Amino acid sequence: MLRNILLIGAGKSTSFLIDYFLNKSEEENLYLTIGDLYPENISDKIRSHYHCTVLELDIFNDENRIKTIKQADIVVSMLPPRLHIKVAKDCIAHSKHLVTASYVSDELKELDPSVKEKGLVFMNEIGVDPGIDHMSAMEILDDIREKEGKIILFESFTGGLVAPENDNNLWNYKFTWNPRNVVVAGQGGTAKFIQEGTYKYIPYHRLFRRTEFMNIDGYGKFEAYANRDSLKYRSAYGLDNALTLYRGTMRRVGFSKAWNMFVQLGLTDDNYTLENSEGMSYREFINLFLPYSPTDSVELKMRHYLKIDQDDIMWEKLMELNLFDSHKIIPLQNATPAQVLQYILEDSWTLKEDEKDMIVMYHKFGYELNGKKQQIDASLVVIGKDRTYTAMAKTVGLPVAIATLLILNKKITTPGVQIPITKEVYQPILAELKEYGITFKAKSVPYLGYNPDSVAG
Amino acid sequence: MLRNILLIGAGKSTSFLIDYFLNKSEEENLYLTIGDLYPENISDKIRSHYHCTVLELDIFNDENRIKTIKQADIVVSMLPPRLHIKVAKDCIAHSKHLVTASYVSDELKELDPSVKEKGLVFMNEIGVDPGIDHMSAMEILDDIREKEGKIILFESFTGGLVAPENDNNLWNYKFTWNPRNVVVAGQGGTAKFIQEGTYKYIPYHRLFRRTEFMNIDGYGKFEAYANRDSLKYRSAYGLDNALTLYRGTMRRVGFSKAWNMFVQLGLTDDNYTLENSEGMSYREFINLFLPYSPTDSVELKMRHYLKIDQDDIMWEKLMELNLFDSHKIIPLQNATPAQVLQYILEDSWTLKEDEKDMIVMYHKFGYELNGKKQQIDASLVVIGKDRTYTAMAKTVGLPVAIATLLILNKKITTPGVQIPITKEVYQPILAELKEYGITFKAKSVPYLGYNPDSVAG
Repeated sequence: MLRNILLIGAGKSTSFLIDYFLNKSEEENLYLTIGDLYPENISDKIRSHYHCTVLELDIFNDENRIKTIKQADIVVSMLPPRLHIKVAKDCIAHSKHLVTASYVSDELKELDPSVKEKGLVFMNEIGVDPGIDHMSAMEILDDIREKEGKIILFESFTGGLVAPENDNNLWNYKFTWNPRNVVVAGQGGTAKFIQEGTYKYIPYHRLFRRTEFMNIDGYGKFEAYANRDSLKYRSAYGLDNALTLYRGTMRRVGFSKAWNMFVQLGLTDDNYTLENSEGMSYREFINLFLPYSPTDSVELKMRHYLKIDQDDIMWEKLMELNLFDSHKIIPLQNATPAQVLQYILEDSWTLKEDEKDMIVMYHKFGYELNGKKQQIDASLVVIGKDRTYTAMAKTVGLPVAIATLLILNKKITTPGVQIPITKEVYQPILAELKEYGITFKAKSVPYLGYNPDSVAG
Repeated sequence: MLRNILLIGAGKSTSFLIDYFLNKSEEENLYLTIGDLYPENISDKIRSHYHCTVLELDIFNDENRIKTIKQADIVVSMLPPRLHIKVAKDCIAHSKHLVTASYVSDELKELDPSVKEKGLVFMNEIGVDPGIDHMSAMEILDDIREKEGKIILFESFTGGLVAPENDNNLWNYKFTWNPRNVVVAGQGGTAKFIQEGTYKYIPYHRLFRRTEFMNIDGYGKFEAYANRDSLKYRSAYGLDNALTLYRGTMRRVGFSKAWNMFVQLGLTDDNYTLENSEGMSYREFINLFLPYSPTDSVELKMRHYLKIDQDDIMWEKLMELNLFDSHKIIPLQNATPAQVLQYILEDSWTLKEDEKDMIVMYHKFGYELNGKKQQIDASLVVIGKDRTYTAMAKTVGLPVAIATLLILNKKITTPGVQIPITKEVYQPILAELKEYGITFKAKSVPYLGYNPDSVAG
C-alpha cells in the first residue's frame, strides 16, 4: 500500500527533498503530493512523475487545506515559519505526523500535550541550522558524556557562503539564501553568551568587530560573529554547567569588519522609512547618512566619517558595490535603509545560475576526562551543484526527507513536539546523510579554553 | 470672589509655580488647592498659607478626582505625562480649563473637537522645553515674517546643566532633572533632520559623535547632539520651506564624546536585564561588556576596546566615576545596563543641596530679506538658586503659572488643545517672564548657512 506524503510549500529549499522522496517512491511505496500556492513553478519532471501529484493549495482556504491534509499519512511543511501553526492544528485534529525545518514557536510548543496524547511525532528544526547543527553536536556531546567526560566548553558556528570556485569579489560573499536575513542579521537585541563562567554582552553596533577565527583544513580561514541566542539550547543540550557557550555565524575573513561600515553608517536600520527613497541614486542614499557639506565630496566625507585610509582595502570593497554611483537608481518606494541596502547588494551579490554555494559548520567541544582537559573540533563543508541544487537545499532538505521516512517507517516513534537531539533521531539521520557526502571531520586538538588571541578587539 | 486653581501633582518642578500663585493670591483673588498622592511632602509654609489647601489625591480614585476637579475653575496637571488623559476627560465633562507642561499625546489631541465645542483652553507644552523654546522661537520667526523675510534655517538647542560655580567634575555635568531621561537620551529611533534641503539621518550609536558647537557670551562654548524629532514642529512653526531644520540637546564641550564610550560599550541599553546584577561590583559590570581574558586587566581591555591612549582625558573621565572599583556594589535586582549605569552615575553626579543648576537655550534663525541672507542668534541662560529653587523649576513652573492666570483672566481665550505658538499666548507670557529674569539675548550674525566646520566628524 502506498504511503501518502504531503509536502506543503515547494520553495527553493525543496529540490533535494522532492528528489529524495521520488527516488525512493518505488522501493518505499511512497506517493508524494505537493501543495503550493503557485504550482506552475514546479518543474515538469516532478509533475510527470507517476508517484507524484502537484496541487494548487492556498493554506488560508480551510476546506481545501483540511481535505488535503486528511488524505496524507505524514505532512512536511516548508511554509514560512509563521504559517506552520494552521497546518499543525489540522495534523492534531486528523492524527497526522508533521515535519518542519523551522524553529519551534511558542504557540507550536503549546501543542505538545495534544501531540503526545495522540501519539504523534512533530519533528522541527531538522534542516541545517537549526538541524544538522543539533544532531552533529549532540552526537559528540553524548559520546563524551558516555565516557564520563565533563563538558566545559561548547562553541558552534554555521555559515552559508559562496563556494571557493565562485568566490570572486572583495567581500568573499554572495547571497545564497534570503538576502533580507543577511542585511538585518544581529538586530533585535544584544548578543549574549558565556565565556569561562562569565556572561558577556555585545551591542549590535559592536557585533561585527568582535569576531572569532577558525580554520577548516583545505578551505582556509573563516571568522564568526556572535548570534543573539548562544544560550538558547543550553538546557536542551545538557550544558547548564559548561563554562563557555558561544554560537556564531561564519563568514570569510574580513567580511564582518567591512559589514560594520554599513552598521556604523546606519544603512542596516529597518525601523523607519526614508523620505523620497524612490528615484534616489545610490550616491544620494549614502549621502543621507553623512554630514552636510557645501563643497566636500561624498567620497571624502565617507572616508573621514569611517576613518578609511587612502590605501585601505575597505575602500575598494565599497567601490565594488557602486555605492557612489549617481546614475544607479533605487526603484523602491518608502523603503527602509535596510531595504535599500539589500537592493544595492543584490545588484552585486546575486549568485549566477551556474554558480555554487557552500555550507560550512564548525563545532568546538572542550571537556575534562580523567583529570585532563581536552578538545575536539568538528567541521563540515558542503558545496552546491548549481543555483537550484544548492548546498543549502541539500543540507536543509535531506534531513527533513530522511526524518519523514524514518517516522513513516516507525524508526522514530517518540511522540511530541520535538527537535532532533535524541539518539533515536540523530543516529539514523546522520548515518544516512553520510551517504550523501554530508560528513563531519572531527579532530582532537589541545584544549585552549576560550582563547582571547583569536578574538579581534 | 476667589478663583479656584487646582494643582494636581506637586513634584520637584513646582516650587516656583506654587510660589507664583500664592504670591498673587491676594491681588488676583486666587485660591490654590494642591492635590498630591503624598501631601506630607509639601512644606508647612505652603500648607499654612491662608489661600491654600493641600489634599491627598489619588487620581485613580475616580470619585475623589472628579469631586476635586468639579470644585476648580482651572486645573494645572503636573502629573507624569501618561496620566494627564484622565484629568483631561474630567475637565471636558465639567467644563474646566487645563494647563500642562507635557507634550500633546495623540489621545489628548483627539479631544480637540470636544474641547473647542465647550470653549475650553487646554494649554500644553508650556514649560521650558517644550515651552519657552516654542514661545521664544515663534516671537522671532513671526517678527522676521512680518518684515517679509523668508526663513531658510532654524536650529534650536536646550540643555539642563550644572551652574558654572558648581561645575567641578571632568564631565562638566551633574543630574539636574530626571537621570533616567539622560541615560536613555537619543534612543528609540534614528535622529532625522534637514540640512540645506537634504534629509540627514544619524543612528543612535553615532549620535554623540556628530555634535555642533555654539558660544554663549559670558558662558563659553557648548556642544549639542541632535534630537530625534527635529521635524516635529516643522508645520506648526510654518517652516515647511526652510532648508535647514535641526533641534538638539546642549552639553558642555567634550561631554558627548565621553558619553559615546558608554554607548559603544552597550551600557545605555535599556531593552534587556542582566543576569545577577544584584551584588555585582562596578568593575564586574564593566567587564560584562569586554572580551574575556584570563590575564589582561579590565582597565587594559577597556583602553584597547575603546582605543583610549595613555594620555587621553577620556580615561580620567572614566576613573572619576569609579568604574573599575571592585568594592562598590550594585544593589539593583534584574537591572538593565541603563539602570546600572544610572546608579553608578548618580553616585558621582547628584547635585548637592546648595548646588545650582543652569538652563541654557540657543536658537539660530537664518532668513532672506531684501535679497540678502541674514542670521539672528538668540540665547538664554537661567541659573538656579539651590536644589529646590532650580533653574529647571523656574523655567518650567513660571510659564505654566503665568499661562494659568492669563486663561483665568480671559487674556488667553482661543479654545482647543494647543501649544504656545500664537501671539495671543507667547507675547504676554514672554513679557512677564522678563520680570523674573528669563530674558533672551538676540544678536545679528553673518549668515553662514549650515556650517560644516562646526560639526565634529
